[in-house]
Amino acid sequence: MTLRQLRHWAFGRALRTRESVHQTIGKTVGLAVFASDSLSSVAYAGGEILLILAVLGATYYWLSIPITVAISGLLIILTLSYRQTIFAYPSGGGAYIVARDNFGEQAAQVAGAALLVDYILTVAVSISSGVDQIASMFPVLFNYKVQIALLLILFITLMNLRGVKESGRVFAVPTYWFVGMMLLLIGTGLAKAVFGQLGTVTDVPGVDHTVENLTGFAFVFLLLRAFSSGTTAVTGVEAISNGITAFKPPKSRNAAITLMWDASLLMIMFLGLGVLGYLAGAQPSEQEVLISQVARTVYGEGLLQFITLLSAMVILIMAANTSFADFPRLAALQAGDGFLPRQFTFRGSRLVFSWGVILLAAFASLLIIVFQGSVSRLIPLYAIGVFISFTLSQSGMARRWLKTGRLMYAGKLTPETEIPTLGSILHYDRHWMWKMLLNGFGAVITSIVAIIFLVTKFLSGAWIVVILMPFLVWLFDQIHGHYKRVATILSTAGETFRGQQRPVETIILVGDVHRETMRLVEFANSLGVPWKGVHIAVNEERVAEVQRKWQERVGIGELVILRSPYRSLTRPLYTYVRKRLRQNPGGYIHLVMGELRTGSPLSQLLHQNAHIIEQLALSDLDGVVTTLVPFPLEKYAHLSPDAHEEHHDDAVQETVIVAGQKEEES
Amino acid sequence: MTLRQLRHWAFGRALRTRESVHQTIGKTVGLAVFASDSLSSVAYAGGEILLILAVLGATYYWLSIPITVAISGLLIILTLSYRQTIFAYPSGGGAYIVARDNFGEQAAQVAGAALLVDYILTVAVSISSGVDQIASMFPVLFNYKVQIALLLILFITLMNLRGVKESGRVFAVPTYWFVGMMLLLIGTGLAKAVFGQLGTVTDVPGVDHTVENLTGFAFVFLLLRAFSSGTTAVTGVEAISNGITAFKPPKSRNAAITLMWDASLLMIMFLGLGVLGYLAGAQPSEQEVLISQVARTVYGEGLLQFITLLSAMVILIMAANTSFADFPRLAALQAGDGFLPRQFTFRGSRLVFSWGVILLAAFASLLIIVFQGSVSRLIPLYAIGVFISFTLSQSGMARRWLKTGRLMYAGKLTPETEIPTLGSILHYDRHWMWKMLLNGFGAVITSIVAIIFLVTKFLSGAWIVVILMPFLVWLFDQIHGHYKRVATILSTAGETFRGQQRPVETIILVGDVHRETMRLVEFANSLGVPWKGVHIAVNEERVAEVQRKWQERVGIGELVILRSPYRSLTRPLYTYVRKRLRQNPGGYIHLVMGELRTGSPLSQLLHQNAHIIEQLALSDLDGVVTTLVPFPLEKYAHLSPDAHEEHHDDAVQETVIVAGQKEEES
Repeated sequence: MTLRQLRHWAFGRALRTRESVHQTIGKTVGLAVFASDSLSSVAYAGGEILLILAVLGATYYWLSIPITVAISGLLIILTLSYRQTIFAYPSGGGAYIVARDNFGEQAAQVAGAALLVDYILTVAVSISSGVDQIASMFPVLFNYKVQIALLLILFITLMNLRGVKESGRVFAVPTYWFVGMMLLLIGTGLAKAVFGQLGTVTDVPGVDHTVENLTGFAFVFLLLRAFSSGTTAVTGVEAISNGITAFKPPKSRNAAITLMWDASLLMIMFLGLGVLGYLAGAQPSEQEVLISQVARTVYGEGLLQFITLLSAMVILIMAANTSFADFPRLAALQAGDGFLPRQFTFRGSRLVFSWGVILLAAFASLLIIVFQGSVSRLIPLYAIGVFISFTLSQSGMARRWLKTGRLMYAGKLTPETEIPTLGSILHYDRHWMWKMLLNGFGAVITSIVAIIFLVTKFLSGAWIVVILMPFLVWLFDQIHGHYKRVATILSTAGETFRGQQRPVETIILVGDVHRETMRLVEFANSLGVPWKGVHIAVNEERVAEVQRKWQERVGIGELVILRSPYRSLTRPLYTYVRKRLRQNPGGYIHLVMGELRTGSPLSQLLHQNAHIIEQLALSDLDGVVTTLVPFPLEKYAHLSPDAHEEHHDDAVQETVIVAGQKEEES
Repeated sequence: MTLRQLRHWAFGRALRTRESVHQTIGKTVGLAVFASDSLSSVAYAGGEILLILAVLGATYYWLSIPITVAISGLLIILTLSYRQTIFAYPSGGGAYIVARDNFGEQAAQVAGAALLVDYILTVAVSISSGVDQIASMFPVLFNYKVQIALLLILFITLMNLRGVKESGRVFAVPTYWFVGMMLLLIGTGLAKAVFGQLGTVTDVPGVDHTVENLTGFAFVFLLLRAFSSGTTAVTGVEAISNGITAFKPPKSRNAAITLMWDASLLMIMFLGLGVLGYLAGAQPSEQEVLISQVARTVYGEGLLQFITLLSAMVILIMAANTSFADFPRLAALQAGDGFLPRQFTFRGSRLVFSWGVILLAAFASLLIIVFQGSVSRLIPLYAIGVFISFTLSQSGMARRWLKTGRLMYAGKLTPETEIPTLGSILHYDRHWMWKMLLNGFGAVITSIVAIIFLVTKFLSGAWIVVILMPFLVWLFDQIHGHYKRVATILSTAGETFRGQQRPVETIILVGDVHRETMRLVEFANSLGVPWKGVHIAVNEERVAEVQRKWQERVGIGELVILRSPYRSLTRPLYTYVRKRLRQNPGGYIHLVMGELRTGSPLSQLLHQNAHIIEQLALSDLDGVVTTLVPFPLEKYAHLSPDAHEEHHDDAVQETVIVAGQKEEES
């Protein structure tokens, strides 16, 4: 099986560029595809609030209710804000595009840095929490938490390298399964509570908290920390505004309706689970997640609990999968703008950006290893990137409305005209001021949340993001500067080729005289240019033999012998080539080398690949051109089927470079 | 600083091939160089005996004395045996050469496998024990044992990559320092014991053994285990017979005398430390080595104890260093015989086989990580390889004497004649029978020790070697088979070049039309062969632009456009080249590609190196020759010093492959 066949088997048929355009989806599938990120956060956000409140003791757990309500308010503002973005940017309004369009490249790079960090953490947090869900029922799995998480990432990575088609439709069912299970749980639980039949959560493993008596500032600080942890619930609501073009027309309208569904379901589930958890007396625990505690109290331990937890795990894996589509797409956008290595713009054979997929998987795996797959330890790094991008996106929108208003007052924008910007089109809009106020309010709220998050989580991990973000932006700028410089140097504006010729000296590198050498000679001869052979005498004793064989078997062309007193393969060649270049200033030295190809990577290791060593050694000489003539070993195998006896004559000597008894050193 | 300058700075000046011959040494330096391996084992062998006896309890510690005496007897037999090898193989008589000479290649490969494993373990055990010595005085170092050990290996590796000259003389002083300190310690200690002033070892850290009441078979088994652990003391005595050629003439005589010194010193130190340790009541401990216990009892805690332990650590590091000379030399021998990859025969720029050095360091580091640098856990893997090679070497010698005797009886070997073998020369020898009996006895004893070792240490680690050794021998045979096959295929015996020519089609790969493209065109034009350009249209929108620029700026030569509906860089080229090859059967397709060289490895990462991708993609097509024309970016930088404004015109467009709004996928 060749490499190409292997790749085809593993990654499937390639998709044509235009096939991606035809893969548009309706609202039902759209919700499944884009909502998994936001809905799945229900599986950990409530539990994380409780874990912070644990410091205050059980009598204060009721505080989780007002905190949950406050976060629901935040969600409403965000949803209305993003609804406006969807209509303003019908071809996709991620924070990167909105920031670039309204604040320019620098702000876009800040958004890019925030989003890339966000995507990596989405994978790390979602996968870690996914393992937690199922390990809540089978505690033995906690011992293998990191290993399971890494295997899941590997699985998602392979799925994504195969292509995006499956990542869309195959994962549609699980979203509804999760939503169904959660609504069933909340409905049943609340009904039982109404009829006084809801039990109390007991025997939660790993609950052992030191209760502190906090007052004043410390108390408020703790509440804000709990609020910060809970805000992870709203992460992911921006996903739909990123992917508007994936929807069937009318794209913006369908996307906006899907966003409403998404937000409504999220709020119902987040509030419902929060209230139900409080009523059932759920405990803060890193060993049993909130859903597990509630489910076994409502249903009793058993199958229904298992199915509920399994659906949570699956949707969390899907949420991670969302990042696997978003990260490479954003990286490609940034690379296209020249702020990330150009390789990110490569499309894999199935329309995915393989480079980005692999990088994302590597970083997320690293985070899981470093933080041992603990959601509570990952959270402080998580939401800050999200809220920075929210703020940039919302304030960018506000600025856009302000611009619309100004242009309208200046009479440049009328109901009959439109003004295109870099990323979209400005239309006349009577309600621009209300819209500006809404997006502006969203920006203020999300920036306040970002600051609260930064302050309350600074020591427990947010500082990492504070260092990382400016570094990333600096790095993007460095890359951009490099590409600009290369473009300037390569630019040939105004210059034309005038048919100039420079002297070329063609040299065949001769290690030994055998069938591979014959092929080099044949190629140089076929090319029809003058040439000579050069043999580097690493082994003095073999020089006469090589010269004799050259005379006997090649017969034409000069063979230059370069002595190598240091037994170095590269040094004599380097000296020789440099001398020739000095004698022919401005000329080319054209080295023709053989490359033995054994046909299998393992046996290829047994051959020296001298061409790599030589190319590296000559890399600081200007004007050295190298030509590689491959020698496919297996295609010549039939020529000497039963010639096993005669090998003593020839090439085995090539292997006996070290003569045993002469090699002693002290 | 270029790569070559960096290497020169780090690894120093290269040595000429013949310089190695002049580096011969006298007996004094010879002892220092070759004896470190054998003498250093004193630092752990005695302690390891005690650690096994710990199971029996303190009342049985006296058993260490008879065990030590038995091992000393083994040492005497080995020394006399190897003395004969030194005279029989004046150009070096390692187990590999002796086995190859007397039993043939298969036995030599078994010896080779045993020795390679032995060298790796010598490094791992010596370095681990070296850290133990100094950590016995500063227990805090135990926490960083693995890290310190790895740093030491890194240090030795760098020293060896610089060259062997330093590894010889610089390390001469420490051997005598260690011998001096040990003799002082044993002398002072025994004198104190005679005058009744020797104290008792107290406060040994980490002593907490469960004492078992063993009888009968279990008791004997345990004694044999203790004996096995102690036999590590004799490892390294073969080193001198490996390195005879390093000595000043008369080589064999000087080497033999050095061997006698080595063995005598080893016996005095091993017995002396064993007896003194028993008299002082030394305790089995993994936290404080035997030398440390004895030294602080004889001298009291302080400077003298420190100097003694430091000398032990230094000689252990030197012992590891010995393997760094032996391993690459043996690997080069095996590679020269075609049983290991040919790369091992490469001499580094300072006459060392860099490949072997790096591999040895890697494996030894791995062992230290896996076994957490514990000498007791490494020992079961250690001596078995040593004793297998002892047995092969001694039985090979016995066979050699038998052959001498037979040839003498047949009248073919007389005092006036000599018969050369592969590795040495057979002489007439009246005492052949006595010599055969001595070597034969050595072979029997060492094979018994190997079996005892294997049986008593099987479960604690020797099984790894039992699996590893046959695998290595199998691997060597596979490699050998491959090289034989390649040699057969490459063999051109009887064939000559007849000036044949095949059609060559030269194609320039054109990504965009800029300064680098101009250079490709200039080279093809200079070569004076017919050519055409090929552009792979990854981005449909840019085709017209590329064609226009080609017309304007190149003006000559056809430019073929290959459509790429899948946006693949490689697929259209592959299809095109395959088609051309079919149309010109037996011809060459000659691809000319550019390689942008930025001059720094970091910024090089920002460029796609398309030539690697293309070469890989076309690797299964026979007849594709690739030419790489480097474009050294910095050498062209001066051409566009202040052209920063015009880059929008040209090459920046190259980076904008992804158009942002068109890239949305679900």
